[in-house]
Amino acid sequence: MVRILNKMNVAELLTMSDTLNYVENAYKQLSLGNAIVPQRIAITDLAPGLTLIMPGIIGGGMNALATKIVSVYKDNPEKHNMPTVLGKIMIQDINTGEIVGIMDGGLITAMRTGAATGVSVKYLARKDSTEMSIFGAGTQAKKQVVATYWALNQKLEKCKVFDVHRAASESFKLELEKELGIDIEIIDEVKDEFFSSDILVAASTSSEPLFSGEKIQEGMHISSIGAHAPKARELDSLTIKKANLLVAGLKDACIAEAGDYIIPISEGIISKDDIISIGDIINRKASGRKSSSEITVFKSVGIAAQDVAVAKLVYDRALKENIGQDINF
Amino acid sequence: MVRILNKMNVAELLTMSDTLNYVENAYKQLSLGNAIVPQRIAITDLAPGLTLIMPGIIGGGMNALATKIVSVYKDNPEKHNMPTVLGKIMIQDINTGEIVGIMDGGLITAMRTGAATGVSVKYLARKDSTEMSIFGAGTQAKKQVVATYWALNQKLEKCKVFDVHRAASESFKLELEKELGIDIEIIDEVKDEFFSSDILVAASTSSEPLFSGEKIQEGMHISSIGAHAPKARELDSLTIKKANLLVAGLKDACIAEAGDYIIPISEGIISKDDIISIGDIINRKASGRKSSSEITVFKSVGIAAQDVAVAKLVYDRALKENIGQDINF
Repeated sequence: MVRILNKMNVAELLTMSDTLNYVENAYKQLSLGNAIVPQRIAITDLAPGLTLIMPGIIGGGMNALATKIVSVYKDNPEKHNMPTVLGKIMIQDINTGEIVGIMDGGLITAMRTGAATGVSVKYLARKDSTEMSIFGAGTQAKKQVVATYWALNQKLEKCKVFDVHRAASESFKLELEKELGIDIEIIDEVKDEFFSSDILVAASTSSEPLFSGEKIQEGMHISSIGAHAPKARELDSLTIKKANLLVAGLKDACIAEAGDYIIPISEGIISKDDIISIGDIINRKASGRKSSSEITVFKSVGIAAQDVAVAKLVYDRALKENIGQDINF
Repeated sequence: MVRILNKMNVAELLTMSDTLNYVENAYKQLSLGNAIVPQRIAITDLAPGLTLIMPGIIGGGMNALATKIVSVYKDNPEKHNMPTVLGKIMIQDINTGEIVGIMDGGLITAMRTGAATGVSVKYLARKDSTEMSIFGAGTQAKKQVVATYWALNQKLEKCKVFDVHRAASESFKLELEKELGIDIEIIDEVKDEFFSSDILVAASTSSEPLFSGEKIQEGMHISSIGAHAPKARELDSLTIKKANLLVAGLKDACIAEAGDYIIPISEGIISKDDIISIGDIINRKASGRKSSSEITVFKSVGIAAQDVAVAKLVYDRALKENIGQDINF
């Protein structure tokens, strides 16, 4: 019997505060050696788009085993009137290996990516943070704000948003003001005041730095979840140099995939040893922010452990609340 | 919309003669560079069993993109009254990336493994072959015989079968005599006459050689589809030494995984250059059997291209014949 959970089922089952807990636990278990994330497989040739195959397993009481298959076809909207990114997650019973659930992966991806920033806010941002600024107003960006809101125990009051597409910012404002009851200010041109926020999030599609590190103020927490290729980055070398603490969702993954860290390492500005996995901070193997003036940077590239954890959350809740459709096959 | 195909749907849609054609085409496209089989991912820790993630893509007019997730949990039968091997295949639309079909993977795995031997029989066995012997009487073994029967254009007359479990041989005899109308002889003790057949198939769970190469006769075609780990093998070094032609389903995969070839290479009995991918013979880049006295060996380990090709066959036919269940998610 396989439980099928479509987009609406997943939306009904998934809250950000739960997602934050599960993603935090995934990072924790990774740091404890209770989770395995094999190098993902990318199929890049013979098709007009990219497919990523991302399996992972988490023990430590969570006992989750799942694989996400996600495709990125840039011509889909224009040619097929379909989204660029499509994905599904197959979850197995860790005790028998049987695939017991198949669920839409779109919302889960956005929620777990938001939760990565949320976990970083919980552990790295100043406790008195009330204001954030964000580059990007797309689907991913919205969940960054929702996650930050919950990570700050609903104390987020304001978010400044900049996106090259004004319409995206307007939809962002409409949706988030309604959902969170916070003030959203649309920024048409990024000036100094954009960098006066407590938290700065980069959730863009840019592969070049979005701003100069000169703009970064003391006490700021910065999270970058956009660029995820060795030569692409959202943060410049000066930002990295000015930071007091450089944290990664998973250090090995960022050192392999994130130009935000790879480029400054290659320039000799930082060394690999300067980067800490957030799980090590959660587990108190490493220390987090030490003062209200420190600048903290968090970089995360998507790792399967996040998907696996959130898929487990969704699946278990679906069984409990009897949501979705069972198929006998 | 996702087409769901359960075991019964797959069984209704899949014939061995079609499977042979599709697996042959998969080998052909691999040899032409029109197919990509990334190294499969194995999740071996934190669970009481093994999960393999096997994606692949085939172009060259077949245009198939799919991933098999297969688990091997040895304690399943005893502890959970479930099969040891469980698997499903997710097929994507190569033009959009969307997952458009999810199907049971059990029969497809057995059929494509049978077809590997069948393709080898078509290209390597003597054309006048009418008799085979087989080690193993399990699910995989049965499909080896069915594939050989069709590869010989239904000219297979007799099959001798040996299995350590007599009951397995009896079920094998009952099923195949009914399905193929050929004579099945159950062998309780392997003696010289077992090796008088034209074709010898090894489809066992053994990790040690099943027989001495001394037994091998001129003109024989041998196919081994069992052992698939560097230190495990069904064929001994003498068998490999006596063979005139050493063929692999996919050379790189066998050199990485199959002790049948890896051990004799490490002993200096053969070199990597002696092994030919069957796709190169299909494409006439390399020659096959040259005389009726030659001994030919075929070794195959499962590769995703076989699954991808057969999944495409099943999916396309399901749409055409309107079989299975559509789910909107």
